[in-house]
Amino acid sequence: MKGYAMLKIGSSGWIEKDRPACGPLDAICKPLALAVCTSDIHTLWEGAIGERHNMILGHEGCAEVVEVGSLVKDFKPGDRVLVPAITPDWNSLEAQSGYSMHSGGMLAGWKFSNFKDGVFGEFFHVNDADGNLAHLPKEINTVDACMLSDMVPTGFHGAELADVQFGDVVLVIGIGPVGLMSVAGSNLRGASRIIGVGTRKVCVEAARGYGATDFISYKDGPIADQVMEMTGGKGVDKVIIAGGGVETFSEAVKALKPGGKIGNVNYLGSGNMIDIPRAEWGVGMGHKLINGGLMPGGRLRMEKLGALVAAGKLDLSPLSTHVFDGFEHIEEALFLMRDKPAELIKPVVKLSD
Amino acid sequence: MKGYAMLKIGSSGWIEKDRPACGPLDAICKPLALAVCTSDIHTLWEGAIGERHNMILGHEGCAEVVEVGSLVKDFKPGDRVLVPAITPDWNSLEAQSGYSMHSGGMLAGWKFSNFKDGVFGEFFHVNDADGNLAHLPKEINTVDACMLSDMVPTGFHGAELADVQFGDVVLVIGIGPVGLMSVAGSNLRGASRIIGVGTRKVCVEAARGYGATDFISYKDGPIADQVMEMTGGKGVDKVIIAGGGVETFSEAVKALKPGGKIGNVNYLGSGNMIDIPRAEWGVGMGHKLINGGLMPGGRLRMEKLGALVAAGKLDLSPLSTHVFDGFEHIEEALFLMRDKPAELIKPVVKLSD
Amino acid sequence: MKGYAMLKIGSSGWIEKDRPACGPLDAICKPLALAVCTSDIHTLWEGAIGERHNMILGHEGCAEVVEVGSLVKDFKPGDRVLVPAITPDWNSLEAQSGYSMHSGGMLAGWKFSNFKDGVFGEFFHVNDADGNLAHLPKEINTVDACMLSDMVPTGFHGAELADVQFGDVVLVIGIGPVGLMSVAGSNLRGASRIIGVGTRKVCVEAARGYGATDFISYKDGPIADQVMEMTGGKGVDKVIIAGGGVETFSEAVKALKPGGKIGNVNYLGSGNMIDIPRAEWGVGMGHKLINGGLMPGGRLRMEKLGALVAAGKLDLSPLSTHVFDGFEHIEEALFLMRDKPAELIKPVVKLSD
Amino acid sequence: MKGYAMLKIGSSGWIEKDRPACGPLDAICKPLALAVCTSDIHTLWEGAIGERHNMILGHEGCAEVVEVGSLVKDFKPGDRVLVPAITPDWNSLEAQSGYSMHSGGMLAGWKFSNFKDGVFGEFFHVNDADGNLAHLPKEINTVDACMLSDMVPTGFHGAELADVQFGDVVLVIGIGPVGLMSVAGSNLRGASRIIGVGTRKVCVEAARGYGATDFISYKDGPIADQVMEMTGGKGVDKVIIAGGGVETFSEAVKALKPGGKIGNVNYLGSGNMIDIPRAEWGVGMGHKLINGGLMPGGRLRMEKLGALVAAGKLDLSPLSTHVFDGFEHIEEALFLMRDKPAELIKPVVKLSD
Repeated sequence: MKGYAMLKIGSSGWIEKDRPACGPLDAICKPLALAVCTSDIHTLWEGAIGERHNMILGHEGCAEVVEVGSLVKDFKPGDRVLVPAITPDWNSLEAQSGYSMHSGGMLAGWKFSNFKDGVFGEFFHVNDADGNLAHLPKEINTVDACMLSDMVPTGFHGAELADVQFGDVVLVIGIGPVGLMSVAGSNLRGASRIIGVGTRKVCVEAARGYGATDFISYKDGPIADQVMEMTGGKGVDKVIIAGGGVETFSEAVKALKPGGKIGNVNYLGSGNMIDIPRAEWGVGMGHKLINGGLMPGGRLRMEKLGALVAAGKLDLSPLSTHVFDGFEHIEEALFLMRDKPAELIKPVVKLSD
Repeated sequence: MKGYAMLKIGSSGWIEKDRPACGPLDAICKPLALAVCTSDIHTLWEGAIGERHNMILGHEGCAEVVEVGSLVKDFKPGDRVLVPAITPDWNSLEAQSGYSMHSGGMLAGWKFSNFKDGVFGEFFHVNDADGNLAHLPKEINTVDACMLSDMVPTGFHGAELADVQFGDVVLVIGIGPVGLMSVAGSNLRGASRIIGVGTRKVCVEAARGYGATDFISYKDGPIADQVMEMTGGKGVDKVIIAGGGVETFSEAVKALKPGGKIGNVNYLGSGNMIDIPRAEWGVGMGHKLINGGLMPGGRLRMEKLGALVAAGKLDLSPLSTHVFDGFEHIEEALFLMRDKPAELIKPVVKLSD
Repeated sequence: MKGYAMLKIGSSGWIEKDRPACGPLDAICKPLALAVCTSDIHTLWEGAIGERHNMILGHEGCAEVVEVGSLVKDFKPGDRVLVPAITPDWNSLEAQSGYSMHSGGMLAGWKFSNFKDGVFGEFFHVNDADGNLAHLPKEINTVDACMLSDMVPTGFHGAELADVQFGDVVLVIGIGPVGLMSVAGSNLRGASRIIGVGTRKVCVEAARGYGATDFISYKDGPIADQVMEMTGGKGVDKVIIAGGGVETFSEAVKALKPGGKIGNVNYLGSGNMIDIPRAEWGVGMGHKLINGGLMPGGRLRMEKLGALVAAGKLDLSPLSTHVFDGFEHIEEALFLMRDKPAELIKPVVKLSD
Repeated sequence: MKGYAMLKIGSSGWIEKDRPACGPLDAICKPLALAVCTSDIHTLWEGAIGERHNMILGHEGCAEVVEVGSLVKDFKPGDRVLVPAITPDWNSLEAQSGYSMHSGGMLAGWKFSNFKDGVFGEFFHVNDADGNLAHLPKEINTVDACMLSDMVPTGFHGAELADVQFGDVVLVIGIGPVGLMSVAGSNLRGASRIIGVGTRKVCVEAARGYGATDFISYKDGPIADQVMEMTGGKGVDKVIIAGGGVETFSEAVKALKPGGKIGNVNYLGSGNMIDIPRAEWGVGMGHKLINGGLMPGGRLRMEKLGALVAAGKLDLSPLSTHVFDGFEHIEEALFLMRDKPAELIKPVVKLSD
């Protein structure tokens, strides 16, 4: 079969591979639509997860099941499915403790285009089909379905980590596709005021549609200073970090009230230490909680978020700004994501309706 | 001053009283608008809290401050304020343990028209002004502001008690004004499917606007049977009880998945025991959590929910179906609430814009 | 192989069966020690789970692995293991939502002597060995190890459900083996005062050793009345129910402060409705949380509780009051549990050290 | 009246002041016993809270009430009381949101020897007596009672912030008096293995008594390396930081499992940024929660922790290694704390039994 692969750090192209084998609990799927993630860019051009050779890229997509293992109960060939980017080993100790995304080791619930070939192939392998796939609701088209692999669960996890509650004032740093979903997630958890940090017009417009009420540009000075001015010196209840780098945490801590919470869902690609300012963190005692986590994957998460979209409570169409028709456009979509033109949110490759 | 009072159980009328005295932490307010609550009906005609003589009724309204005590810091005469139905003693042990509504004893955070005169007077007394009042945002009109006293915090508390999460299927039993706010609260916490139990047209329409996706009539058979049919035998993730009686809990338990949660915000006026069916409660071990609680009151709650309304994220206008102009219409509004015509949600008496 | 079985409701005896087959994820074990649970009594003589024919009884024991499936990674023949009474399907939706004990349906994580043969056989089958077994720490003898299958995790779960916190006053209703572990669990979560309800001398002594500070006999009047007198009318912070029937909940609710929590771990064998008194439950709004749940099983739970015992922080020796040597004594142990002499806590059958 | 004061940074001595005035909600107390805290040292000699002139030091002690305000209900002259170091304004927005220690601003619930005179005077002032004092149980002597002002609630808060659960492996960094109480708190929340970091013999012995099972010396290499070796490369479930500096967080993050939690209760006196290592923090996504917070104060906390001590479940006698008789020994006790001889845990000055 054909797949679009990372040949080595900095180099990519089409390769031929054997169709993956299907274990007793597994499924083999063929994509219906695929999306490119910034993580693909980090993996390929920045070596974010280290060297990989001839590894098929991609972890966002929806698919049709073509084969299932002998112990699979709830899926059969022909089923159309949502596919989460994170596919845990559900019997691992980490999953039993509530952190399935770290099953087998920190971040190790992430398998596609990390420990095995990703979804940018004619076929791809899904471990524990019953535990990790979800039936694609008929109300959701294949393009929108790709957003459920990673963008929605990751962005929403930001709102979960930050523990957004009714009436909270929430700062969302970064309003790319993940940040937009953090805005939508905050809105869907009852935030009153949602301050987005970002300037790209397409993102600002989408953010407003998802519930952002105010905007800040990092170009206008330190984020925290602007937040303090906007909130009469009180600061915000919660911060979601969906962009920036290790230095961003300093602004988050400064912008936060005591008793506030920071939820990070942003990949931090460089820097030795994350900046937590001692004084503004209450000299250690300000109850400014800091957490960051990989999205929860698996079937239940897909079913729940899929149901939200199917019910019409979350419109994903603003995210997929660039849709290509046909598997052969993967490279074009990938390069577009790398180059990130001003009007881009997400590039999607559609293979089927 | 004049006030509209419960003379004794079953009898009400206008009375003259001295304007209440203002302690060092307190405020005296005059109403800008007032709303009638079903609790007023329970209190007056059903003796829900026992006998009371010449007690001014009412606990829903917004107001203007006319006097403050010597220790009050954040409010002054002329301030327009949101007034919560529940005004806790914040230094009580109960408040320190997170249950301010029970400060001084179970339900004892409820003071208006319970332990002291209520808000249906020319003036009324508010204990701990700094802890219990909130400035009325200019974006909120006085009629909508009345909904923030009780309907919004109570209905939303149902969604909090039921711990609604992204994608949950939620059953809301009762879609009167409190139930409508439970629908809105569930929607604002990211429920996917919200099944409302109720039939009055005005309520069904409002519920749909607040995010209900499905409806059940208790006239069509037991609620749980209908829920099971609608959910393919799976049941719902969460139940909010905002209507019915002690027997309603039986349906709630039956309709619920194991691991699900029930949040009750409905006053239970009669019956000796609440019905929890042994078998469907997992013979004691089904992890079907049952909680019920009086709304959290106080300033922070008012500020947060007020901010949500001020930001345009919650439209309260559908609730106030009947608005009267002038204090003298209190009795008319009260009797309307008692008679509950088909097209009524809430009657409000407006004294000022 | 030989096993001691329920022949039908009310009748038991030794039977011959094929040794169970081992699936790819499973293990076959032979017991090192076995314990009888009250649930065996309920199952056999009361028909608690309905009719069963020739089903081997038992769900408490420790064992040696004799065979593992091809996909099992962490266990091999010869390993000595802790075996939880509850062995979930970890990839089920229920497990993904945090309720593994209900995997596949309410209470369906309980498989031994329920959906398949139990542990009272020469060999028994364990589903998902990697997910459900734990290595037996060398510090724990085989008799104590049996207490980790059900008594410790069930009793401790009561303290978890009741959410015991530093300094809480906790009422533990029932001080049989499960209740004793609820006392120990409350003590290990920092309760200050632990009031046990029970009178048998052997249990009272053990309870005192596990941290109970006060005792109540139900023979001296209603439990709640006694609690109120002991606490100066304040009531308790938390209640754990580990004995009694549907009527016990009424006492629990009455004894509880507003904002308190009830955790039930007792099997409720009869009665139509559980008694929740309307008035004392705050007419629906007292924030007296009621929960009840089957113990969490699986490997992580076994490892964590095993570590606690191995570290010497929980002495299980007082529980096993009657120890028999040799598999052939199973029937004797079972009948002893049924007859429950005054000096009995738990009967254990030891096959090996 | 006489008091021992910070004259300015670096200089201290006895001064004369007027006895403090008593507001309507307040109490005036005279000490029964007093203890010196490391914070007194930081305040006086390191300028930790900035310059102060002639401010009476001290925030640990127990006392007798000598005067109460007109609105105080539960205390009267002659009552013997526990006094928390943190005395919140309970009606503040921060307290209403669950963070009373930050009432009025970050850390602003700390008033003694910060915003007003401390307890090292013949008399001292307590704001909101009903909300902040607790009756001293007769089972607790005045020396032990001093440990309840700060050491117990602060140390235990570490275990709360780290969310210690049954069977957890907990690393406690720093085993001075606060760290010892974090060890005790972890033990009282059911930790299995508790690894203390510290070397002073008196502390190691006390830690063992409070439940520590293993010890590490920072002199033997990086803490995290040692932890990894001790845990077979798995790391710990939870970390409590009760000593060290901004660089200590790096070791904590490295020693922690994904999904683990860090609770800091240590004052961080210097350094610009707290060290959170990017890679070991899962490049932002390892779910290694970091929190740090000032102890919860107030009456309920004192009552609950006092009950624990009164019930004999926490022995505080090992903490007070140096007890002086008579108010005049305050300076000696203070200087002893500054000099920190090897055999010191806490110096206490006893004025009365």
